[in-house]
Amino acid sequence: MADKGFTLWFTGLSGAGKTTLANLIAERLAALRIAHEVLDGDVVRTNLSKGLGFSKEDRDTNIRRIGFVAKLLSRNGVPVITAAISPYRAVRDEVRKSIGPGFIEVYVKARLETVVKRDVKGLYEKALKGEVKAFTGVSDPYEEPLSPELVIDTDVENEVQGADRIWNFLVEKGFVAAEAALAVGRA
Amino acid sequence: MADKGFTLWFTGLSGAGKTTLANLIAERLAALRIAHEVLDGDVVRTNLSKGLGFSKEDRDTNIRRIGFVAKLLSRNGVPVITAAISPYRAVRDEVRKSIGPGFIEVYVKARLETVVKRDVKGLYEKALKGEVKAFTGVSDPYEEPLSPELVIDTDVENEVQGADRIWNFLVEKGFVAAEAALAVGRA
Repeated sequence: MADKGFTLWFTGLSGAGKTTLANLIAERLAALRIAHEVLDGDVVRTNLSKGLGFSKEDRDTNIRRIGFVAKLLSRNGVPVITAAISPYRAVRDEVRKSIGPGFIEVYVKARLETVVKRDVKGLYEKALKGEVKAFTGVSDPYEEPLSPELVIDTDVENEVQGADRIWNFLVEKGFVAAEAALAVGRA
Repeated sequence: MADKGFTLWFTGLSGAGKTTLANLIAERLAALRIAHEVLDGDVVRTNLSKGLGFSKEDRDTNIRRIGFVAKLLSRNGVPVITAAISPYRAVRDEVRKSIGPGFIEVYVKARLETVVKRDVKGLYEKALKGEVKAFTGVSDPYEEPLSPELVIDTDVENEVQGADRIWNFLVEKGFVAAEAALAVGRA
């Protein structure tokens, strides 16, 4: 177990690098044998939010559910990593309030032209052609966090640099024990 | 923390005594300072299943969501207690399979005339008048478990006797450490 539970809440455009960073942090926790859960956007849509669409209301409901599950886990000492776009500020702040001090918002930032160029899932092309509706950043809003715990700008930092900064934050704040992190050369 | 996570899954008619037993077990875990979660039917309907009704499909979806959250918690060492009616056998067995050996099904049994007489929430009267539709045991089926880990018959056992039998099961199977249970005079 980690010293204490926390929720590492990644937010940002599709293709910004949320899942990549989430997986890197998950690997480091696994290397320390710290049990944890990754609540990936797709996993959650399948298991908790089937039937919900992409209207503001449905997106907010989806985020509230992820937040509820993250709260249950992290208040029992289980570190949780979420990687849903979570485009709306108000509902992210609602989750922050509900989880309390263990809530760590990481804004994974990338310029729209960057994520369009990456187009990891081929969805931006479709969105720009109007074939996918309500696509965040194209036809649907993304509201940047106003005071996230961390901003990782993937236009200027590579994934390992980003993961290092997040990891350092977790160690500095005592969410991961410094001794444990040292043991795998990560402090 | 408990020795290992588990999911104590109560099933039975409304008014059979699921919530009462769930709360008694939760109190004993709390007395041992074992962090745990109670996923009460109402809490879940508010936080995970808003908008779902009481059709077979919607009930099954609700149960799958409770099962998903219970799995996440219990596989991380957090004991979970659920107390939803969960009337359909197939979806309970689906949850059993997904959670694995930590799944403990407790059938809280009571005759229909008993729960109608108790009518804790005043719902049976309405259901029998046809004012509440799709009410389990009256106008909607309840499928008894075929091989639950425990059957508590609240027509013949009082709540403390029932809780004692459940508690003994948890200790015998090593879900709660015997030494810990002894410390509070519960082994």
